[in-house]
Amino acid sequence: MEKDFSPLQKKLGIKFNNPELLENAFVHRSYLNEHPSFHLPQNERLEFLGDAVLELVVTEELYAKYPNPEGELTNWRAALVNSKMLSAVAGKIQFEDLLYLSRGEQKDTGKARQFILANTMEALIGAIYLDQGWDSAKKFIHEYIISELPNVLAKKLYMDPKSNFQEQAQEKTGITPSYKVMSESGPDHDKIFVVGIYLGKDLIATGEGSSKQEAQESAAQKGLEVQGWI
Amino acid sequence: MEKDFSPLQKKLGIKFNNPELLENAFVHRSYLNEHPSFHLPQNERLEFLGDAVLELVVTEELYAKYPNPEGELTNWRAALVNSKMLSAVAGKIQFEDLLYLSRGEQKDTGKARQFILANTMEALIGAIYLDQGWDSAKKFIHEYIISELPNVLAKKLYMDPKSNFQEQAQEKTGITPSYKVMSESGPDHDKIFVVGIYLGKDLIATGEGSSKQEAQESAAQKGLEVQGWI
Repeated sequence: MEKDFSPLQKKLGIKFNNPELLENAFVHRSYLNEHPSFHLPQNERLEFLGDAVLELVVTEELYAKYPNPEGELTNWRAALVNSKMLSAVAGKIQFEDLLYLSRGEQKDTGKARQFILANTMEALIGAIYLDQGWDSAKKFIHEYIISELPNVLAKKLYMDPKSNFQEQAQEKTGITPSYKVMSESGPDHDKIFVVGIYLGKDLIATGEGSSKQEAQESAAQKGLEVQGWI
Repeated sequence: MEKDFSPLQKKLGIKFNNPELLENAFVHRSYLNEHPSFHLPQNERLEFLGDAVLELVVTEELYAKYPNPEGELTNWRAALVNSKMLSAVAGKIQFEDLLYLSRGEQKDTGKARQFILANTMEALIGAIYLDQGWDSAKKFIHEYIISELPNVLAKKLYMDPKSNFQEQAQEKTGITPSYKVMSESGPDHDKIFVVGIYLGKDLIATGEGSSKQEAQESAAQKGLEVQGWI
């Protein structure tokens, strides 16, 4: 199966000197199990490189533009480069069809796909850096990733949902939220918890998870949505 | 207390355009507690920047020079940039006297000092990068850190001591090492374990630690030294 990388190059405004580098960024290791004689290796070495390029570009931008303490900048950076954000950016670029995946991985569209998309984003950054240099990689990262920073800051995406809900609840209502387990079901190895998040006696939202912590986080996330705090 | 940074600049072969940036790299936050009106902030923002510069320089070098899988390169990189290595490099540069530390931190010369030295190394890299640019930071990192790579590879410093001992034992003696707890003393919250590492029935070395795992690691480390495998 031949894939056409010209539309992607056009979209990114980058003409690769070595188009195989670009193609290489999209080769997941699962594909090589089924196609051992494929002409390109898996993309993990490019991902290793791209991850470090991404980190420095984002770090430099945060350092230069914000006087905040290092701890805050670290949290903001994490929110910009985590797999959730990178897979969302991959979704905007719409390069999913270009992935070289095994048949099994093609079917999986959950968390596993999210990680593959995020890793491919890093490999793509590595390929741009190698083929086009620092300035071009920096431009790409600014256009697609650092552009998300205002959104990260406005929605406090750098905070976990429980801390975010608590901070906003205290600020806006003066009440500290509390959590209650509403039900617990399933066998020991496959429990499902349902937890409610409360402000005083008011149930704001419920969340489900395979641990209490996970259910609390889900409840806090839904609570943020219900309250219009996100 | 005024400190003289000229000898350090001479040693590094770098004349800073803004010498306060260099000085800033040496200001530990503990010092500002005792000297709140000091003219420079703590070094943690520089450390945040320098850490990312260090990571990219090392990553790029490993990517370009070694065809190994990404997992191996990740381990090698970790061995080059961990606090043990960075504090050892700080020891070679001999900049310890330039640290701005609280009186309490001045007395502590154990693990806490090791972390402070390592973080100061990163802050120093951040200062060089800001003041002198990428090429100068890269040159510094090559001269003082990447130069340690042959040693890391020869002594397998990228492996934890237990894995390293096991691999070499199997290669050189055909025997898989085993561990035995030789004594356990002290109250629950402050236990001391002594563990022996054996090849067959031969006791090779013993190690101490506050957990079995820690004592095993210490025994393996001493075992590597006793056997001349490091």
